[in-house]
Amino acid sequence: MQFSQVAVLDVLDLCGVAVFAASGAVLAIRRKFDIVGLLTLAFVAGLGGGVLRDLILASRVPLAFDNPNYAIVAFVTAIIVVPTQHLIKRLWRPVLVLDAAGLGLFCVTGASLATENGLAAIPAVMVGVVAATGGGVIRDVLAGEAPQVFQHDSVLYVIPAALGATTVVIADGLGQLSVGISICAALAVTSLRVAALHFGWHAPLPQRKNDE
Amino acid sequence: MQFSQVAVLDVLDLCGVAVFAASGAVLAIRRKFDIVGLLTLAFVAGLGGGVLRDLILASRVPLAFDNPNYAIVAFVTAIIVVPTQHLIKRLWRPVLVLDAAGLGLFCVTGASLATENGLAAIPAVMVGVVAATGGGVIRDVLAGEAPQVFQHDSVLYVIPAALGATTVVIADGLGQLSVGISICAALAVTSLRVAALHFGWHAPLPQRKNDE
Amino acid sequence: MQFSQVAVLDVLDLCGVAVFAASGAVLAIRRKFDIVGLLTLAFVAGLGGGVLRDLILASRVPLAFDNPNYAIVAFVTAIIVVPTQHLIKRLWRPVLVLDAAGLGLFCVTGASLATENGLAAIPAVMVGVVAATGGGVIRDVLAGEAPQVFQHDSVLYVIPAALGATTVVIADGLGQLSVGISICAALAVTSLRVAALHFGWHAPLPQRKNDE
Repeated sequence: MQFSQVAVLDVLDLCGVAVFAASGAVLAIRRKFDIVGLLTLAFVAGLGGGVLRDLILASRVPLAFDNPNYAIVAFVTAIIVVPTQHLIKRLWRPVLVLDAAGLGLFCVTGASLATENGLAAIPAVMVGVVAATGGGVIRDVLAGEAPQVFQHDSVLYVIPAALGATTVVIADGLGQLSVGISICAALAVTSLRVAALHFGWHAPLPQRKNDE
Repeated sequence: MQFSQVAVLDVLDLCGVAVFAASGAVLAIRRKFDIVGLLTLAFVAGLGGGVLRDLILASRVPLAFDNPNYAIVAFVTAIIVVPTQHLIKRLWRPVLVLDAAGLGLFCVTGASLATENGLAAIPAVMVGVVAATGGGVIRDVLAGEAPQVFQHDSVLYVIPAALGATTVVIADGLGQLSVGISICAALAVTSLRVAALHFGWHAPLPQRKNDE
Repeated sequence: MQFSQVAVLDVLDLCGVAVFAASGAVLAIRRKFDIVGLLTLAFVAGLGGGVLRDLILASRVPLAFDNPNYAIVAFVTAIIVVPTQHLIKRLWRPVLVLDAAGLGLFCVTGASLATENGLAAIPAVMVGVVAATGGGVIRDVLAGEAPQVFQHDSVLYVIPAALGATTVVIADGLGQLSVGISICAALAVTSLRVAALHFGWHAPLPQRKNDE
């Protein structure tokens, strides 16, 4: 890809960090963790998937430890969540949309990085799925919750990520991978996830278990 | 080792992937996870130990992400488990034997790869144990169960793996490591584990906690 | 740094391994795990933070798998804990001091290694915190406990580690990092943690949850 496309991918990656870091901070508030617990969950959720991805790709120090912007984005997002939590609780639906956006962004950037590193098609899709879901899984395990991927709406969480990563890998195989296609794939993943949540295809809201 | 020996090791490694992936799928069925949860646990259990091993050995992209066969074996095994689950429940004893086979296979291939990568004796044994038990530990943590290594039969789970890895490391140190010795070591580990389960040396059956 | 400083860092690192391995063994005894469970928790607690640190730094095989001394120190510490557990229970306060010492030692060695590997300031602090807290987090997750970082005294666990790592990074940036400063930083972190525990600034004793 060209330079500008790489830059766009970086921005998309940082957007994914922000929305997942927000999901970690929101979970920490629900669990009544203190400020350090909140920052920890935000960092783990925002950076965990990308760190797993980069450890697997084995090419260098993980981006989140190479580029301070990742930590700064996660930190600032977490700090913003604290005073705005009442707003965020009322805006739970927008938060789910942001989480869906993170899913779309990370499966696309993960699969793109994997193909750039020369991985074959199936492993590249796996890397996309790990990048998109890994941060959330570590977040839930550390917070003592069952990972979302094993909840009833999991079909609509992992499958969109796998479809988005597959799209990227196929486009790359055809030599057609561009910023436009990457963004379209991320949007499609996000839309599929949001539609599934909205229409309740499989999914009681993830937090229902705690609210009842 | 010679080429043919390497090829045999690869086949043994893939056999280990299959039996551990089956263990993940069976656990997912017991926990009533849906198909995505089942596939996730099968992948994690089948590939997790080897990925940890390869991350530690740091030589390259983990084999499970370098060679699509690993993902294919895990996927096909998980899919086969779904329609045959009633058969597998009746065949619980054979499943435990398969799990024991995975333990034997992975401790041998893990220790072999570690010595090939120039690790000293004690670390090479540790890599063998991590490879043999890591997938199961991650599987259990994600599924919200106490890792098997902390159950009452743990003595008979980790110790056979450590003995098998030690055998490989000693044989390698003596310049005697061959496919024959590798297979014998794997069989000995499997036999020790199966004997322990059969004679109840320490071990109530692992699933008893759930069945009672 | 000079050769002798590197050697001192290595010794400090091994001291951290010993005190964290002891913390794992003590937790295993409280949870009534058998000897294998005890050794597993001791290895995980003693070596886990450093392995995470080295995986992130990506420079080579993790030290704990490159240098057999790490495994030997963890093993011997765990074995010593077994017959002395009654003594250790009476000496709970000293154990907490040792744990605080591990926190101080690992945040300093972690941040030092990170700056040596060319990481920027913020990521180097993150590596120090991961090294200091990672082993304890994995220990608690595997044992089925909520990680200490999410308990009420977490403010006084992560923050001292972050301050110590920051001190090392700033000293390094000023070209003033020496063995003396490293040891002073580790002592300051340990003192802050111990003072917080002693004066109960935030912290009910970590084991209270189990004792009541």
